[in-house]
Amino acid sequence: MAPLIKVAIVGASGETGQSIVNGLLSSSDANFVCATNFIIYSLQIAYIQQEIKALTRPESVSKPINEDLKSRGVEIVPVNLSGPLDKLIEVLSGVDVVISAIFFGSLGDEIPLANAAKAAGVKRFVQSAFMVVIPPRGVVDFREKKEENFNYIQKIRLPYTYIDAGWWYQITLPRLPSGRLDYLLPASQPEQPIGLDGTVPSALADIRDVGRYVAKIITDPRALNKKVHVYNEVHTRDQVYDLLESVSGEKLDRQYISEADAKGRIEKARLALEQNPADSSAFGMLSVSQLFFSWGIRGDNTPEYAAYLGYLSSKDLYPDFEFTTLKDYMIEAIGGKGKGVYQGR
Amino acid sequence: MAPLIKVAIVGASGETGQSIVNGLLSSSDANFVCATNFIIYSLQIAYIQQEIKALTRPESVSKPINEDLKSRGVEIVPVNLSGPLDKLIEVLSGVDVVISAIFFGSLGDEIPLANAAKAAGVKRFVQSAFMVVIPPRGVVDFREKKEENFNYIQKIRLPYTYIDAGWWYQITLPRLPSGRLDYLLPASQPEQPIGLDGTVPSALADIRDVGRYVAKIITDPRALNKKVHVYNEVHTRDQVYDLLESVSGEKLDRQYISEADAKGRIEKARLALEQNPADSSAFGMLSVSQLFFSWGIRGDNTPEYAAYLGYLSSKDLYPDFEFTTLKDYMIEAIGGKGKGVYQGR
Repeated sequence: MAPLIKVAIVGASGETGQSIVNGLLSSSDANFVCATNFIIYSLQIAYIQQEIKALTRPESVSKPINEDLKSRGVEIVPVNLSGPLDKLIEVLSGVDVVISAIFFGSLGDEIPLANAAKAAGVKRFVQSAFMVVIPPRGVVDFREKKEENFNYIQKIRLPYTYIDAGWWYQITLPRLPSGRLDYLLPASQPEQPIGLDGTVPSALADIRDVGRYVAKIITDPRALNKKVHVYNEVHTRDQVYDLLESVSGEKLDRQYISEADAKGRIEKARLALEQNPADSSAFGMLSVSQLFFSWGIRGDNTPEYAAYLGYLSSKDLYPDFEFTTLKDYMIEAIGGKGKGVYQGR
Repeated sequence: MAPLIKVAIVGASGETGQSIVNGLLSSSDANFVCATNFIIYSLQIAYIQQEIKALTRPESVSKPINEDLKSRGVEIVPVNLSGPLDKLIEVLSGVDVVISAIFFGSLGDEIPLANAAKAAGVKRFVQSAFMVVIPPRGVVDFREKKEENFNYIQKIRLPYTYIDAGWWYQITLPRLPSGRLDYLLPASQPEQPIGLDGTVPSALADIRDVGRYVAKIITDPRALNKKVHVYNEVHTRDQVYDLLESVSGEKLDRQYISEADAKGRIEKARLALEQNPADSSAFGMLSVSQLFFSWGIRGDNTPEYAAYLGYLSSKDLYPDFEFTTLKDYMIEAIGGKGKGVYQGR
């Protein structure tokens, strides 16, 4: 029996983190006796001293999501990323792969995590990328922060894989006039217009598949020290609307937005943030409008652009990967059996 | 007969630029009737209005280096990189490959050049990299500027090849006690101590070979939208000293420098620059000390680190490439037949 691979994950309770944990737990191999190839540690970040203490008390690690993880065999390990480095190194000692699915507002905390991983001899570090394909600089502010971390990782020569994933099905469907999809669309999700004339292509993935891809990638030698682009299907917005109309039998209103108007939204959001730099919702609005500009107007989120940027493709690496099609996801969602994201955790 | 490839080069009179022009002119193919596969345009930059006028007057393009280029079939084309974009687009229209070997203090001027190249449909853009292998950020300030330009090129989706080349033989030899090498060492080259214990490896190349590699790379489809690392041999400083002692029969003094002292030099240079931000020699000192820290202390300039950073290797691409060995260069240099760089042009 091959030795189990020890994986430590930060952000296991987030949408991406949950998908990754599920992907790791469901990964199995006929040659293995055990159900999964992985031993998983969920690094539970405690930022302030109080929280750490709380987390080290048994009752504090028993909030529902952690209880659920524990019941599935995941070990909950409290860590303090801004604490002493040697403690962190101790936690990561013997760990094969570190995956960060850290909140995008906390990306700076990846630096001590990377330092500890390097010192502990971690064999692969997967930083919190997990985004659509975006130029490293000049289009989306928070993507630049990820690039900064990436450059830091390269500077300390930490073995890595950088993984970006298609825009999730779970946040790609427009609302149906009947309201049948409201139950799974994030309440906060603004109705997004369609970029340009509706023909801008964008790569899509089911968030539930992302973790399954990740489970393959983190043990794949071909992906060591590489960027990997993960996606299921590529569709233009008009194609998404057409398909949803056909599957639902409902007629959708289509609002198109020009490049100039989309730029205007970014400028407006930037102005609001400048007036109130500490306002996280202003930062959120800027990020949302910049992201839309990237995938909805510029058309950055395509396999072709990913290849140009040097990403390996999940299609080339795993041609036989079985994934949920967008159509099947729509059928599931309209049938009332879908599960949304960002829903009141 | 295959069509000739039109190449426009900025900085043709610099050390790298001259090597590239020589490489292009000497490139030939038995199947071609003509002596070279390339038609070469030297883009003569005029930064200020006066110079432009001068350059557009026939006598102004007749300074020795341009006369030499012209006599070898290179067309001299005056350009103003900070002038109107449409003029620049016109100049680049029909050009297949743009190579920038621009002065490292003028890297900002590559942005309009890249914009014009994109608009003109240039098939490959080779930015002014041509450096040792350095982490994109956090070690050498001017390398970050190159990364900024690289990220800009990727943002506008300009087809590119990014080429770094080993530290030149021509600036790698220590002085001999007899003074026999003084004639070809740059007068301004400070005596560089040896990093750590002398066992830090560093990739080296003869500057005269760099252009010959470039001539191959710019038409190589495998190198499109890739970084390429070019070098001849890898040596530690002790190996370079040993070899020079053996070839020259002279005994060399060896001064070693610790990581802390090398860092101290950087800090001293940074302080001097902060006190006098417009002092280009202070910037030069900072760059020299940072570069030394990268290749001489950190050991960044190796094929292994280049591979980690995603570079293709000239050794893999062109295993049969005939290059000058360091030993042959030493013999040539000691024999009085060497040609130095940065020598009072």
